[in-house]
Amino acid sequence: MGEANRPRQAQLREHVTDAITSAVVDELVESGFARMSMDAVARRARVGKAAIYRRWSSKQDMVEHVVAELGWTSVPVPDNGTLADDVTAYVTHATAFREDLRVTRVIADLGAEAMRNPGLARSFYDALREPRRAAGTAMLRKAIERGELPADLDTDLALDCLVGLTYARPQTLTASGGLADPYPSQRLVEVILTALAACRR
Amino acid sequence: MGEANRPRQAQLREHVTDAITSAVVDELVESGFARMSMDAVARRARVGKAAIYRRWSSKQDMVEHVVAELGWTSVPVPDNGTLADDVTAYVTHATAFREDLRVTRVIADLGAEAMRNPGLARSFYDALREPRRAAGTAMLRKAIERGELPADLDTDLALDCLVGLTYARPQTLTASGGLADPYPSQRLVEVILTALAACRR
Repeated sequence: MGEANRPRQAQLREHVTDAITSAVVDELVESGFARMSMDAVARRARVGKAAIYRRWSSKQDMVEHVVAELGWTSVPVPDNGTLADDVTAYVTHATAFREDLRVTRVIADLGAEAMRNPGLARSFYDALREPRRAAGTAMLRKAIERGELPADLDTDLALDCLVGLTYARPQTLTASGGLADPYPSQRLVEVILTALAACRR
Repeated sequence: MGEANRPRQAQLREHVTDAITSAVVDELVESGFARMSMDAVARRARVGKAAIYRRWSSKQDMVEHVVAELGWTSVPVPDNGTLADDVTAYVTHATAFREDLRVTRVIADLGAEAMRNPGLARSFYDALREPRRAAGTAMLRKAIERGELPADLDTDLALDCLVGLTYARPQTLTASGGLADPYPSQRLVEVILTALAACRR
């Protein structure tokens, strides 16, 4: 939202904005970005379409802003004093995250859409990929400082190991479209620690 | 396609089926499953809609069959005598695969769609997830027989390590919606081998 819009934004009723935001998320879960219509969002939020267009100029604009403000995209940066405890916290957060099938659906939907929609890609990347990778980068940096990981760590490769291994199972759909059972966390954490130590330049 | 349909199928002209199949893939790349219409497929294939409905009863039915017959979903089972060479072949195949952005788009689109569409989930799982995992399972089994991996390997975890680490980078979109640069394959292969050896029960 540009600076110029701020004064007008301030006059918009917050509970209406909240109702629309919540309706957008519900529509993304049930129908996905491509099928979602402004009419359906307005009906679900029990507002007129004008209320939506006072806030956002288009479906694209609306979804970009809703995604950017979704609280569930934040990833805490673990800081427990050891890499093992930090990776455990990271995996535990991811496991809780995946248990919300709504979130998993929206992420898969927007991720696919982002591949043909640069505006959405930017917003999706900032809201989802970046927090996951920023939390991971902070963890890895601290582990290097403590001497738990080699100083010549290939952080790019290590980040993909951490993120890839943590989220591999959540991304494994079963034949019925549900999610595969999670691993025993401790076993996954051990494999991640071993893999990270091997990510040398 | 049921047994009862076979005789009728045999009378359908193959070049028309090929043209429709190719149009379906193009439409999936450009528009995705949700937006794709039978009209658009017919226009692109330069056939009448009747030609499509003689083959498949619905968009869903059509896409399920087209996905099942896509050659790009096959994953060769490497058999080079050592786990290191097999993992290298597996990673090399995945890297070539990801270079086709069309394929990556269709897979992301159908994967997202599969989360709310059980019929598509089944077809997608059989055509894509299964071949990746079957090739991986065969590789791991041979490595255990050769004594390169522990006999008490947690094959479920090892499979997700192999698939997750191999395909983690291809799934990493950049902010512009493009694909992240690939790793030096050899470095990734080494990390995968280390991770696999750590996947014990």
